[in-house]
Amino acid sequence: MSVAAVRAPDSRHRFIDAAIRLFARHSFAGTSLQMIADEVGVTKSAVHHHFRTREELLTAVIEPLLGALRAVVEAAEGQRGRRARAERMLAGVVDLAVRHRMLVPMLIGDPGATGMLRSRTEVGDLVDRMITLLAETDPGVGGLIKADMVMAGIAGGMSARTRGLDDDVLRRHLIDASRRTLGLRTPRCLT
Amino acid sequence: MSVAAVRAPDSRHRFIDAAIRLFARHSFAGTSLQMIADEVGVTKSAVHHHFRTREELLTAVIEPLLGALRAVVEAAEGQRGRRARAERMLAGVVDLAVRHRMLVPMLIGDPGATGMLRSRTEVGDLVDRMITLLAETDPGVGGLIKADMVMAGIAGGMSARTRGLDDDVLRRHLIDASRRTLGLRTPRCLT
Repeated sequence: MSVAAVRAPDSRHRFIDAAIRLFARHSFAGTSLQMIADEVGVTKSAVHHHFRTREELLTAVIEPLLGALRAVVEAAEGQRGRRARAERMLAGVVDLAVRHRMLVPMLIGDPGATGMLRSRTEVGDLVDRMITLLAETDPGVGGLIKADMVMAGIAGGMSARTRGLDDDVLRRHLIDASRRTLGLRTPRCLT
Repeated sequence: MSVAAVRAPDSRHRFIDAAIRLFARHSFAGTSLQMIADEVGVTKSAVHHHFRTREELLTAVIEPLLGALRAVVEAAEGQRGRRARAERMLAGVVDLAVRHRMLVPMLIGDPGATGMLRSRTEVGDLVDRMITLLAETDPGVGGLIKADMVMAGIAGGMSARTRGLDDDVLRRHLIDASRRTLGLRTPRCLT
């Protein structure tokens, strides 16, 4: 096996890591392949060898996350009872968000990235299933708005203010606040 | 007064409206002055006459919103008691968000726009004061995370799912869910 072949997956990962940092800082539309090359310290043609476009890089960035999210949605859908499904969906999505702190705000908030994501029907389908799982304990428009707010709120919880927080602490606070929003939390006076 | 002078404020507004639509669709970094000219149906130099850069357009877009937000923050700070301050801040920010539905998600989520906004110290100062007002009923990191989630959640509540909703209905749901998140709502069993 040649040295180039051994190193190929490694440089792929370096480009993906650099893309995540730059997308978060400059937005998807504001990041060029040249900027990614500069960040890694290689030529643009070295990036081009792995990724022909910025869109291909975004796809490589989100593919593992999409797979994990699909697994969480399916596990939640397999639970018995609306409340159990909502709790499972919430725990799964908070866990993914905390493990991908830098990536998640961009995937939800950056119009350049969300536009490309929404054009993939599987993504729209996954988001709809997530919202349904979170919203079904409160049928109607109120439940849908709460579910939207929780999804955006989880991404918003990854702000600069929480950057230094331990994963477990952040996860616990995000779940607690989301359960309040969704009405999944039993009022203290009833416990 | 010449025709051009009479029309000047009018075309300024047309460029600002077009910029809001395009920023929301293509992100701030993904929108050029040429795209804004095409959207309005004029030449790029006609845009250039009013706005030399995309940054100048973003400033013109957010200036009225910043002024309104400053007024809301000051009114909230003038209330007596943490709870009254949080309630006033929440009502004010939800009202602004609903009245600027298309603009708000971008100002919170688009890294290109938020990067430019954050570089203005008055914006960072206003956001910090908002978060403080929303967080002070629950001192500590939990309150800060809830405040961040509510701010992002309000923007997230402007999703495609709620686009057709009446302003009053949307406002009521956003306030209800935010009050739940912040723990401002009295549990039904105690009323």
